[in-house]
Amino acid sequence: MRNILIIGAGRSSSSLIKYLLEKSRTADLHICIGDVSKEAAAQKIQGYENASAIELDVFIKEAREAAIQQADVVISMLPARFHIEVAKDCVRFGKHMVTASYISDEMKALDEAAKEKGLVFMNEIGLDPGIDHMSAMQIIDRIKEDGGNMLLFESFCGGLVAPESDTNLWNYKFTWNPRNVVLAGQGGASMFIQEGTYKYIPYHKLFRRTEFLTINGSGKFEAYANRDSLKYRSIYGLEDIKTMYRGTVRKVGFSRAWNVFVQLGMTDDTYTIENSEHLSYRDFTNLFLAYSPSDSVELKFRSYLKIDQDDLMWEKFLELDLFNASKKVGLKNATPAQILQKILMDSWTLESDDKDMIVMHHIFGYEKDGTKHQIESSMVIKGDDQTYTAMAKTVGLPVAMAALAILDGKIKTPGVQLPIRKEVYEPILKELEEYGILFHEKEVPYLGYNPESVKG
Amino acid sequence: MRNILIIGAGRSSSSLIKYLLEKSRTADLHICIGDVSKEAAAQKIQGYENASAIELDVFIKEAREAAIQQADVVISMLPARFHIEVAKDCVRFGKHMVTASYISDEMKALDEAAKEKGLVFMNEIGLDPGIDHMSAMQIIDRIKEDGGNMLLFESFCGGLVAPESDTNLWNYKFTWNPRNVVLAGQGGASMFIQEGTYKYIPYHKLFRRTEFLTINGSGKFEAYANRDSLKYRSIYGLEDIKTMYRGTVRKVGFSRAWNVFVQLGMTDDTYTIENSEHLSYRDFTNLFLAYSPSDSVELKFRSYLKIDQDDLMWEKFLELDLFNASKKVGLKNATPAQILQKILMDSWTLESDDKDMIVMHHIFGYEKDGTKHQIESSMVIKGDDQTYTAMAKTVGLPVAMAALAILDGKIKTPGVQLPIRKEVYEPILKELEEYGILFHEKEVPYLGYNPESVKG
Repeated sequence: MRNILIIGAGRSSSSLIKYLLEKSRTADLHICIGDVSKEAAAQKIQGYENASAIELDVFIKEAREAAIQQADVVISMLPARFHIEVAKDCVRFGKHMVTASYISDEMKALDEAAKEKGLVFMNEIGLDPGIDHMSAMQIIDRIKEDGGNMLLFESFCGGLVAPESDTNLWNYKFTWNPRNVVLAGQGGASMFIQEGTYKYIPYHKLFRRTEFLTINGSGKFEAYANRDSLKYRSIYGLEDIKTMYRGTVRKVGFSRAWNVFVQLGMTDDTYTIENSEHLSYRDFTNLFLAYSPSDSVELKFRSYLKIDQDDLMWEKFLELDLFNASKKVGLKNATPAQILQKILMDSWTLESDDKDMIVMHHIFGYEKDGTKHQIESSMVIKGDDQTYTAMAKTVGLPVAMAALAILDGKIKTPGVQLPIRKEVYEPILKELEEYGILFHEKEVPYLGYNPESVKG
Repeated sequence: MRNILIIGAGRSSSSLIKYLLEKSRTADLHICIGDVSKEAAAQKIQGYENASAIELDVFIKEAREAAIQQADVVISMLPARFHIEVAKDCVRFGKHMVTASYISDEMKALDEAAKEKGLVFMNEIGLDPGIDHMSAMQIIDRIKEDGGNMLLFESFCGGLVAPESDTNLWNYKFTWNPRNVVLAGQGGASMFIQEGTYKYIPYHKLFRRTEFLTINGSGKFEAYANRDSLKYRSIYGLEDIKTMYRGTVRKVGFSRAWNVFVQLGMTDDTYTIENSEHLSYRDFTNLFLAYSPSDSVELKFRSYLKIDQDDLMWEKFLELDLFNASKKVGLKNATPAQILQKILMDSWTLESDDKDMIVMHHIFGYEKDGTKHQIESSMVIKGDDQTYTAMAKTVGLPVAMAALAILDGKIKTPGVQLPIRKEVYEPILKELEEYGILFHEKEVPYLGYNPESVKG
């Protein structure tokens, strides 16, 4: 029997575990689920016989080593910063490894050692990163093989609330880690290239520089630039491409309102606020407005941010209770970002019957035989419920499929990898279709920005 | 003969060295000037007999130790990050030390050792920090001794160009390190307290939250908040004060225009721009504007930043040649901030007959016997020429005076210090008056913000 060790039995592991448990009956697998809470791990087994649950804290060396030694492939669903000790043990004990996280420098440094031992360390094989890489590379490779020359690649992805559960003015609820949403876009300028012209956007302008996109059957969305798009030129083998842009999708109007939090400084996570525990939501808001005790916090807010009183955006802030003088922050020594997160969680937490939705949209522009072409490829996935969410399915299923494909010797190129090879994306994208995770592709006229003149 | 070692013979040392050379004839002093360039050090001696010049690189241990061992007091005019090895040697060899820099954590850690050996390590005794501390503490102590209770302290300081040399639309030239001007305000939110209400301003709003001040005889100025004002409550012994604000002074209108650079992202020093060397000034500006090749860079700039074409601010950017398509950046792998600095230096470098000007302005609010009072105290100093600038005088003279007072045993409290004790500020402020560096003080009606109601 082949042993798969899954480390981390949190919300994001539900579809991953379910898939592997189902396969365990036919594919000669034993699934070991390790979590700091043995109870959480045990709950996931659901009566499957070829499975076991263990208490596993990856910071306890002996326990970690013992668990890894018994596995043939190790899946780490821990936060990215916790992978490295697991990865080092996988090298030492000769085990394959799969994660849905970006390849860190520490992980990258294990590439040679993994290759020497013939081990596959597959990373970035969740949703984003993951399905984005695979679905993009499939079409890019096809265009190239067909003699096309890539001109443009734009890719958009976002985790949203499904339309039937979309009940607030922001058209947004937290379907993933709220902290990441609050801090999104921080840590450096966003950079991309459009028709040969480099563009750099600082964080404080990011949410005012959105692009729009329309997805057949799902309507219009907006996107803000997702960090460094330039580096994807070399990853995707598109070194000379004229346009490369990656964006994060929101419903239209979200970013303009979110920008207000950025402008105020409420997303700052670098300092703590004195006496934060005892502040009301109103006091918190007032920290970022000019001192003027004879004016109301509301008016100072609207004046500072230039929000008309009949602007729908204004209603969005009222909906969040940002001016409530009786609701208390209740967090000691909190940063602005931590307090904002708490305020947003009051309003944006999913109800028990809410469903989430994942949107992914690619645009490929290319030239072939002197003619320009454009392909759009879109995926829209809704969650089944609060366990098998769209996020859990799209993150977990490719991870699970990759682990099994590695065991079966179908994915065999060794080293620290991301899923950009045909060997990986072809079987996995095909199998994902069986689970309803598929792209709709269409040819559209080549739009570009200004096909006749590129002056910048 | 008492030996003073001055490390660093750069522009900021001119007045310091001149003062000590003059004193050397009457006060039994030998002045040793050490610099990486022995020639630069020698030039400063100007025929004075009790002086010597040495080549001194503080990173060469033997040379540093030899020079320090021969001194009775060591003045370091190096950038702050270079003080620490000198300071450690001063502890080891039992020498006093004087700097104009903020006390670093490393310097602070030497406090006990300095105290044990009875050494005075006087820091923050230039202009700002320096004269600001001394002139503030003199009045704060006087108010307290007179039975007053401090309510408010606001302090403003700026290095500007003198009115007679003020020839550009920005009313600004570089009179000090240009890089520090470009990066000013970065590295965290500014924070202060006004009538008991905390206020936090993120960097990207800093230059839109200016306060105005008027100085008799010098006109109206503006100021933006200078980083963390809150920590000065404990430094100045004003733990319970209701208002504490420190600001950086500019001529009116500067900050609103500077904000445009911030908004664009041109002051970012955290990443380098591809192909920066070959960009024109116009290309550089366009990096930060939305891609739209059929629109002019000028129009995109004005539209994005909401600048009317008849706004004087628009002329400021034209004056800087920001849209020039033939001027090249010429810097390899440069950050936006480095390129902006170069563009600004084309326009803002002092001409040979230009003079600089220092402005400092304090506001003290206090209550005594049930009545509120307010004192304003201002200093405006112009440079003599490009050697004995206002900056060199105001930074260097207090440093020189402190070194001599330490030698003379007039300043004797040991440890790592800043000049907030009467023992220090009284003699030095008095002597500075002889050099034209003096404050004009006046009583004004207590203004506060809203004396009757404090609600925020």
